[in-house]
Amino acid sequence: MPFFKEEDLMSGSVHLSEDGSAVVIVDQTKLPNRTEYLALRTKEDIYDAIKVLAVRGAPAIGICAAYAMYVVSRGKAGMDYEEFAASMQADGEFINSSRPTAVNLSWAIRRQMGVVEAGRGKSTEEIINDLKAGAIAIHREDIEMCGRISEYGLSLVKPGDGILTHCNAGPLATSKYGTAIGPILLGKERGVDFKVFADETRPLLQGARLTSYELEKAGVDVTLICDNMASMVMKNGWVQACFVGCDRIAANGDFANKIGTSGVAILAKHYGIPFYTLGPTSTIDMNCPTGADIRIELREPDEIKTMWYEKPMALPETKCFNPSFDVTDHELLTAIVTDRGIVYPPFDVNLKKLFA
Amino acid sequence: MPFFKEEDLMSGSVHLSEDGSAVVIVDQTKLPNRTEYLALRTKEDIYDAIKVLAVRGAPAIGICAAYAMYVVSRGKAGMDYEEFAASMQADGEFINSSRPTAVNLSWAIRRQMGVVEAGRGKSTEEIINDLKAGAIAIHREDIEMCGRISEYGLSLVKPGDGILTHCNAGPLATSKYGTAIGPILLGKERGVDFKVFADETRPLLQGARLTSYELEKAGVDVTLICDNMASMVMKNGWVQACFVGCDRIAANGDFANKIGTSGVAILAKHYGIPFYTLGPTSTIDMNCPTGADIRIELREPDEIKTMWYEKPMALPETKCFNPSFDVTDHELLTAIVTDRGIVYPPFDVNLKKLFA
Repeated sequence: MPFFKEEDLMSGSVHLSEDGSAVVIVDQTKLPNRTEYLALRTKEDIYDAIKVLAVRGAPAIGICAAYAMYVVSRGKAGMDYEEFAASMQADGEFINSSRPTAVNLSWAIRRQMGVVEAGRGKSTEEIINDLKAGAIAIHREDIEMCGRISEYGLSLVKPGDGILTHCNAGPLATSKYGTAIGPILLGKERGVDFKVFADETRPLLQGARLTSYELEKAGVDVTLICDNMASMVMKNGWVQACFVGCDRIAANGDFANKIGTSGVAILAKHYGIPFYTLGPTSTIDMNCPTGADIRIELREPDEIKTMWYEKPMALPETKCFNPSFDVTDHELLTAIVTDRGIVYPPFDVNLKKLFA
Repeated sequence: MPFFKEEDLMSGSVHLSEDGSAVVIVDQTKLPNRTEYLALRTKEDIYDAIKVLAVRGAPAIGICAAYAMYVVSRGKAGMDYEEFAASMQADGEFINSSRPTAVNLSWAIRRQMGVVEAGRGKSTEEIINDLKAGAIAIHREDIEMCGRISEYGLSLVKPGDGILTHCNAGPLATSKYGTAIGPILLGKERGVDFKVFADETRPLLQGARLTSYELEKAGVDVTLICDNMASMVMKNGWVQACFVGCDRIAANGDFANKIGTSGVAILAKHYGIPFYTLGPTSTIDMNCPTGADIRIELREPDEIKTMWYEKPMALPETKCFNPSFDVTDHELLTAIVTDRGIVYPPFDVNLKKLFA
């Protein structure tokens, strides 16, 4: 039951259904083997979809939550303001509890609750319309943010360049274009072709399952490699730039991103290849002085030993170290590409100027 | 039906059965989930075991083939010399065809055929005894070679050191101790403990399936990581040395080893960690001037996209680059540890001295 065409994937993985009754998402747990859509109509649907990672990627979760607040509000049209606001508050808290560490989730819900509060005095129907407009605005802002990052990123490469990327920072995780993948898709739209190398990104394989899928569907020349093949691909002279996303950028330019990013940066430096991280200004945390202040989540050994596999790949008693992110030193970074422009070293000085 | 105790694993994966009627191997295709032994009694058994990688690792294949030549010779005791030699030649060629690119396989068969040729004039029974002695000699030489490499390697680290390794160069692939894993197991035998980090080594996962298994069984403190986690492990200060094997060493010290080795070397250099390759002198090819002269085998995309998995991890049409080895530049190498001693730079000068 596709609600929109497969080409629409390139505009992101989250949309509002035409009649406004459902948040329609691409079920990311089924990729790359099946492109299935889920119509989320209740707060329970939304909660489950976020919890099982059917929708993932910080911006995509935010957009999904914003539309969800509108979709659930439609069933409360007959309520008076106090009842409506209390009910929305309860639904928002419930949806927010699906993934408590997701910053964009709580941000989007808070922003929509601001719409509810600002609506005191209006009719419930009017507020419901405002929530729809609020969600569309959040979605549009993300598309614009991705578009600006993509434009800046595109200015850093030339037609035919080889680009290596790690993990997934494309439209599935965001809206149109994505961040790290944005320049490639914007280029494609303008007839500029690149040769992309996608690290499979163990252990969760976002590079294989999502990035190579997105690029293949978009008609981009993509080659999937194991993470440990990046050195040889660079040595062969096939990579002119590395584009990666970011989860958090410290005030000195150190940044956290998917595990393995720092290794790619070290290889790029060794081979003399420019290395860029691309992300929205909201990712920059000026209250975080350096990468040493970023806490790294450690995850379960079974993601390494048993997940995805037909049979376990190591003994049950064998221990694993399984960090979900690592920190890349700012000295390895050529530039930070944001929606407000390209920031070059010295990062401690130049990041401040973004917020001046 | 175990023919020898699990502790014997530490003396390698290939043995002759007590009654001499079979080559007994650990079935490496079943690891790490089941420790199963195969008794190989016919040339067809041997052929199949080598072909399906039930026995793998260059030295282990050589030892297996040497014992195989003895085991198959026992059925020819009634033959006269010419018939015996012709039959051995045919069996040797058949066994050799199981994996045509395995240098140690053809080397061991040729050496045993030399025993047959040198036996002209002896009784068939005597030659059969010589073949047994020949196989035991090849096995013993490998044990001694591994022992010497392990001693030299052990001199490079101190108790409690963290050691990172890639792929599998332990007893399963060789005989007692192994090569890159040798110093760790020799240390263990002497009560010297290390903290080992084993890269899982995509796509064939030898580090997970074999190295972490061997070390766990030997009681070594081993932590399994994904290949892309090596950078963070090094950054955390947990690694004092990298030990890796080698498939071929060029005259200038460049060397080919499992894909990903060059990346580990670049990370080690970045973090100021000594990086060693360990292997027998026979791995050094003085007729190969540099790493650029080593041809790298490219393998099938399905090793990356579908192998081991319950479901495919990328689209069928997505292409992959899947080299089985990469070449590590000699400038990244602290020293080469051989059975004839430790070779330091300048490698082009000092490798020659090994053969002087």
